Amino acid sequence: MSAKIFLVGIGPGQAEHITHCAQAAIERASIVIGHPDNLAQIAHMARGKEIITINQNPLERSRAAVEKALNGQDVVIVSSGDPGIYAIAATFLDYLRQQNLMIETEIVPGLGLAVYASARLGAALGSDSASISLCDQNTPWTTICRRLSAAISADFVMVIYNPFGKLGATRLEEAIALIQQERHLNTPVGVLSQASTPDEKLLLTTLGELPKLTLPTDTLIIIGNSQSYVYGNYMITPRLYKENIGY
Amino acid sequence: MSAKIFLVGIGPGQAEHITHCAQAAIERASIVIGHPDNLAQIAHMARGKEIITINQNPLERSRAAVEKALNGQDVVIVSSGDPGIYAIAATFLDYLRQQNLMIETEIVPGLGLAVYASARLGAALGSDSASISLCDQNTPWTTICRRLSAAISADFVMVIYNPFGKLGATRLEEAIALIQQERHLNTPVGVLSQASTPDEKLLLTTLGELPKLTLPTDTLIIIGNSQSYVYGNYMITPRLYKENIGY
Repeated sequence: MSAKIFLVGIGPGQAEHITHCAQAAIERASIVIGHPDNLAQIAHMARGKEIITINQNPLERSRAAVEKALNGQDVVIVSSGDPGIYAIAATFLDYLRQQNLMIETEIVPGLGLAVYASARLGAALGSDSASISLCDQNTPWTTICRRLSAAISADFVMVIYNPFGKLGATRLEEAIALIQQERHLNTPVGVLSQASTPDEKLLLTTLGELPKLTLPTDTLIIIGNSQSYVYGNYMITPRLYKENIGY
Repeated sequence: MSAKIFLVGIGPGQAEHITHCAQAAIERASIVIGHPDNLAQIAHMARGKEIITINQNPLERSRAAVEKALNGQDVVIVSSGDPGIYAIAATFLDYLRQQNLMIETEIVPGLGLAVYASARLGAALGSDSASISLCDQNTPWTTICRRLSAAISADFVMVIYNPFGKLGATRLEEAIALIQQERHLNTPVGVLSQASTPDEKLLLTTLGELPKLTLPTDTLIIIGNSQSYVYGNYMITPRLYKENIGY
């Protein structure tokens, strides 16, 4: 009889942002699988367990987890941020489907990078927002551009994931050019690089200044909507409560 | 000298989904402010502290927190989910701006309702997504409809917050009618009601069936994109990893 697989989100990195539920799942499992960086972040929870570390390949992580679970062992695959947001969950569940397997799987959500960035900025995601990854083999660039244009025209706050990927800066440059056509150059933009590492860097800038920055690969960008503003060090997208009316 | 204010996300409700950081902030403060439901969820962390409970009014919570901080006491305002997503952070920071006050404020992020729902469903948010609140005094209905249309046409996964608000079912009916014009009626739809309460209900349905459901006010709806599918009890929006190519 097969055991259970947990896909566990450990948040942006610092142990303080992990949930009790995620910690409990890691502590319960006998095998922990993950990217070396993520395993390092939860090493103190995984002591004494079998560790399988696989660099950069979620499909191999899925295979290893299934093999162990079919052998009757409870397995955790750890994922940075939330496992469901541009991370392991879709790849893993699709792998089960392709193999025509049904193994009990629990997704344990974690603090995603965007809410972490928004909190560091203030209230950047206060209103309707659209999340777009610039690099995704499963989504053609034409579809991504269509999503950029739709989000721009409907005044969504925009969260840009994977601005560089393996493709360099070309896509980000093209995306910024599109956005600059319709939004004011002084629109607030928040940039979070190397989140939750000792090199974490938070920048509050504008749409006009954004192309001039040199950014590391590991960067998330939040572009404000037409109502976003800066107060002190905070980037705020209003979603206001009005007395006697409500939200 | 004023003290510090923490806006703390406690996640969808169960104590197991709170982060260590959020718990520490609550335990450190001498005053805890919040909605009665949220205070009940973290009662064991707030024992012995001054409790200020204010029903339904985030502006009054903001005022109370500022008053206490100006008196030199560290204050926490607790928020369900994440304080930045359709919650207290924007209202609070805007209140500071209106009062021309600068009080040290830290936003402690929490597990948002959408990632919790997506995890319960499987991998509903696996690709690009748009979050839209159907009821928000700060956003005219015409703008909300424009956002719905943009998200539909660009094939975003759609997260519908506040489908009823104080306005009843009319807006949701209108939104579903819009979506049905462009997406297949068998598009998977995930519905999470009364999250993290003993009455939590998770439904996996289709766009065609959605209008036939009777739903409680406290509901979040995730509508799949053209690639979303169901396998077993899972709703999956693929974001696939391809060997030798990557994501």
